[in-house]
Amino acid sequence: MSETVFTFPRYPLLVVLSGPAGAGKDSVIRRMKERGLPFHFVVTATDRPPRPGEVHGVDYFFLSTEEFLRLEREGELLEHAVVYGQHKGVPKQQIREAFASGKDVVMRVDVQGAATIRRLAPEAVLIFLTAESGEELARRLEQRGTDPPEQLIQRIGKLAEEMACLDLFDYVVVNREGQLDRAVDQIVAIMEAEHCRVRPRRVQL
Amino acid sequence: MSETVFTFPRYPLLVVLSGPAGAGKDSVIRRMKERGLPFHFVVTATDRPPRPGEVHGVDYFFLSTEEFLRLEREGELLEHAVVYGQHKGVPKQQIREAFASGKDVVMRVDVQGAATIRRLAPEAVLIFLTAESGEELARRLEQRGTDPPEQLIQRIGKLAEEMACLDLFDYVVVNREGQLDRAVDQIVAIMEAEHCRVRPRRVQL
Repeated sequence: MSETVFTFPRYPLLVVLSGPAGAGKDSVIRRMKERGLPFHFVVTATDRPPRPGEVHGVDYFFLSTEEFLRLEREGELLEHAVVYGQHKGVPKQQIREAFASGKDVVMRVDVQGAATIRRLAPEAVLIFLTAESGEELARRLEQRGTDPPEQLIQRIGKLAEEMACLDLFDYVVVNREGQLDRAVDQIVAIMEAEHCRVRPRRVQL
Repeated sequence: MSETVFTFPRYPLLVVLSGPAGAGKDSVIRRMKERGLPFHFVVTATDRPPRPGEVHGVDYFFLSTEEFLRLEREGELLEHAVVYGQHKGVPKQQIREAFASGKDVVMRVDVQGAATIRRLAPEAVLIFLTAESGEELARRLEQRGTDPPEQLIQRIGKLAEEMACLDLFDYVVVNREGQLDRAVDQIVAIMEAEHCRVRPRRVQL
């Protein structure tokens, strides 16, 4: 006699990691990659020049403005925005491919971008990453030292506005100073829990 | 200058582990206790006699029918039912005390009981535990060998009905044969994720 196995549908997740500048989105994703977690990490397209050490196809797809605008015109960007005068956007195709192979997709966007994704893909799992205080966020931005002074001031000025967007998100993870692994553990737990939902979220692009 | 630390409310969870007979609710809770997890595990009150090896105040509060009915009359049971001719119920007071000390509470009830708790404490986190197939559930019940034959038949007959209650729950965890720790890991991840919710569930009793 063959067994009647219970089947519960399992859909790949679209996990959106966002939050104010200085929260540590890049560090969290770098640590997730170091752990070898079996997720697809979205590579964002941008027309800004690479920072020292950044690699095309790994950190970003560094496109010309013309190439970027072509993708946008063709509706092939899940989310795109002009941030500090530079284009950034998430090409859809890689997400479709990851989903087809059953992989969860993890992406990082700023808070504005998260709002767009909530609208375009309401079943996405939105995680708000933050430091433990506004002062800590500002301190990290200053220490990073990658932004020219006027851009730094602009970023710090936006922090309060970004914090006010918390309500848009499903989960909040506090990336405390020196506790990066704890933040990563919480994100992994959130993804595990989402796969156990009786009413799973199914993202369609 | 003192820092303005972001505060996100943290409410203790009421986690209800339920599912059909044979799913392994007792085994899962035993393993959670062995791991020393910092939760309060609810002790159910019953007027049935102890099975061999069961300890009063640990496995159950073994009460006389009269004592049990007094708690029920005083509204001091979160959930109570007559199951196979025996009273079972969850005294509220221990949950209030655990909450007051900030502890998450984990309890085990049958599927009927879970429906009652959904009604009385809608903010509880309801987890449906099951084996991988109906045949596996029936096999485990037979192997347990603790029920008299007529009660065993009654339990097996209820399995389909219990499986149909899945929709009442928030999460489903499949306790596969030989993978008890995997099931426990998933439950712990669910609890971790629930504590990260932007809109936390707050149970009030």
